[in-house]
Amino acid sequence: MDLDLELRPIGYVESALLDRDQAPKQGDEGAPPAWIVLSPETADGGSDLKPGDDLLVLTWLHQARRDELQVHPRGDLANPLTGVFSTRSPDRPNPIGLHRVRVQAVDRFRFEVTGLEAIDGTPVLDLKPVLGAVDER
Amino acid sequence: MDLDLELRPIGYVESALLDRDQAPKQGDEGAPPAWIVLSPETADGGSDLKPGDDLLVLTWLHQARRDELQVHPRGDLANPLTGVFSTRSPDRPNPIGLHRVRVQAVDRFRFEVTGLEAIDGTPVLDLKPVLGAVDER
Repeated sequence: MDLDLELRPIGYVESALLDRDQAPKQGDEGAPPAWIVLSPETADGGSDLKPGDDLLVLTWLHQARRDELQVHPRGDLANPLTGVFSTRSPDRPNPIGLHRVRVQAVDRFRFEVTGLEAIDGTPVLDLKPVLGAVDER
Repeated sequence: MDLDLELRPIGYVESALLDRDQAPKQGDEGAPPAWIVLSPETADGGSDLKPGDDLLVLTWLHQARRDELQVHPRGDLANPLTGVFSTRSPDRPNPIGLHRVRVQAVDRFRFEVTGLEAIDGTPVLDLKPVLGAVDER
């Protein structure tokens, strides 16, 4: 089987957060409002998004390290080394960020959201609606 | 900025589900028990996983179409065409599956899980622990 495992960003994050040191560890820890800007090629995929929608945003954490398999959770050396798949560290073999956000405003193919702790310029890979039955069971 | 957007599977799904037509639309709709098998290179990342853990599994839906921007939800033509980012269709620009599962058993770097509707041989991209505060708020 020939697998095509090349990601194509569907858009980018616009945020006042400019680097990892500024960013909160999670989206509920003080992330500023941010915009998700879809690229013209994928904008049609966002045609039914509207204010109030709860979304799961997948991003490519482009400043992450991919060679980490054990990390100190939250970057705190007081936390014991832990297998990375038991943590939400951005440093992991495939540094895909998962963020739950709420759409606040829609401006054509730009979407203002709250709860997004990704830094400015982060590539966006996917947007999915939250499904309570499967995401919160 | 030179982006490395090439995914590297961390493992694969072993399941009795052999094709898309057999698979339920969501993991709470009758998915059989399945195994996540980490590759030797990434097994250390799973060293702290244990039975009872609730995980978010990211997969690469290798049989999906990447050129769909509008779909009929659940593949039902009675549902109106909808922007793909407002649906959980597997057919999307970056066909990354998101599955909430529970670990039932651990056998070294193999993990039996419930609630995984991905078909046999699906590449696994990432495992993340569920964080109630951010995933269910």
